[in-house]
Amino acid sequence: MRVIGIDPGLRHMGWGIVDTSGPKLRHVANGVCTSTGQDLASRLLSLHTQLLRVFQDFQPQSAAVEQTFVNSNGAATLKLGQARAIALLVPAQQGLKVAEYAPNTVKKVVVGVGHAQKEQVQHMVKLQLAGVIISGADAADALAIALCHAHHAEFQDRLERAVAKAGE
Amino acid sequence: MRVIGIDPGLRHMGWGIVDTSGPKLRHVANGVCTSTGQDLASRLLSLHTQLLRVFQDFQPQSAAVEQTFVNSNGAATLKLGQARAIALLVPAQQGLKVAEYAPNTVKKVVVGVGHAQKEQVQHMVKLQLAGVIISGADAADALAIALCHAHHAEFQDRLERAVAKAGE
Repeated sequence: MRVIGIDPGLRHMGWGIVDTSGPKLRHVANGVCTSTGQDLASRLLSLHTQLLRVFQDFQPQSAAVEQTFVNSNGAATLKLGQARAIALLVPAQQGLKVAEYAPNTVKKVVVGVGHAQKEQVQHMVKLQLAGVIISGADAADALAIALCHAHHAEFQDRLERAVAKAGE
Repeated sequence: MRVIGIDPGLRHMGWGIVDTSGPKLRHVANGVCTSTGQDLASRLLSLHTQLLRVFQDFQPQSAAVEQTFVNSNGAATLKLGQARAIALLVPAQQGLKVAEYAPNTVKKVVVGVGHAQKEQVQHMVKLQLAGVIISGADAADALAIALCHAHHAEFQDRLERAVAKAGE
């Protein structure tokens, strides 16, 4: 299964793709969409165009997006919400179901602790994806989301097989 | 010029279209896109699909969206931001520039006062668009945004002509 993780942001939207086959993981690609344009509509359009191209180029079969942390800064929340809509819309337009994970869940699954530093996350991403070259912090976060989703899917699969076996 | 006004919301997204020819205004159509689906990505996709159809059916040449009021409820702001991204993306995808107006500006232009009640706005929309049948409160707000944009565009046009004349 090919999994894409997306870290939404209005300026920079990170994405990372991994192939998973049972417990085996392989890095496919990662990058950052950077919005261009003067007004908000143009910026959203540029993110949509770039992210759509990533989906067309790599044809992921499953998608995961980081849940947004709602903070007290309303303007920042609004911006993030707008970027997030693009991150959710593009996979939905490709007919994919979109999983959402809280930032702490991603860290817990990838690093082992929910309050891990960014450097720790990058380190674990590199450790799990041999030879990966990461296109910056947003792409690292996106790869972590993809890894979290891959591990989660693998666990789900094992659980379902165990339940089926118990019922035999 | 054919103008569309959009009132963004994650549940209901109002839209209203008017034709403007100098100071003359004519109602074309109005309606509400209602999101369907269980998860957020599906709901955003359903709004995108419906709004895109409105653009394809009526081919507006100019678009305006209401600016979002950022309030202290972070979760509500996030939802509205996500819906708003769809309202901005669809016209941008059609190559249109998207104007944004604060709610108070819309009321001031359409009713004459910035703190007008919803009923007053509806009343003035009906008064300015003879024979209009409005598909609910969200569509009325959308028509008000379209009217505001039409008046603004007409004013801009008159201003530019006046400036050009003064320079002759």
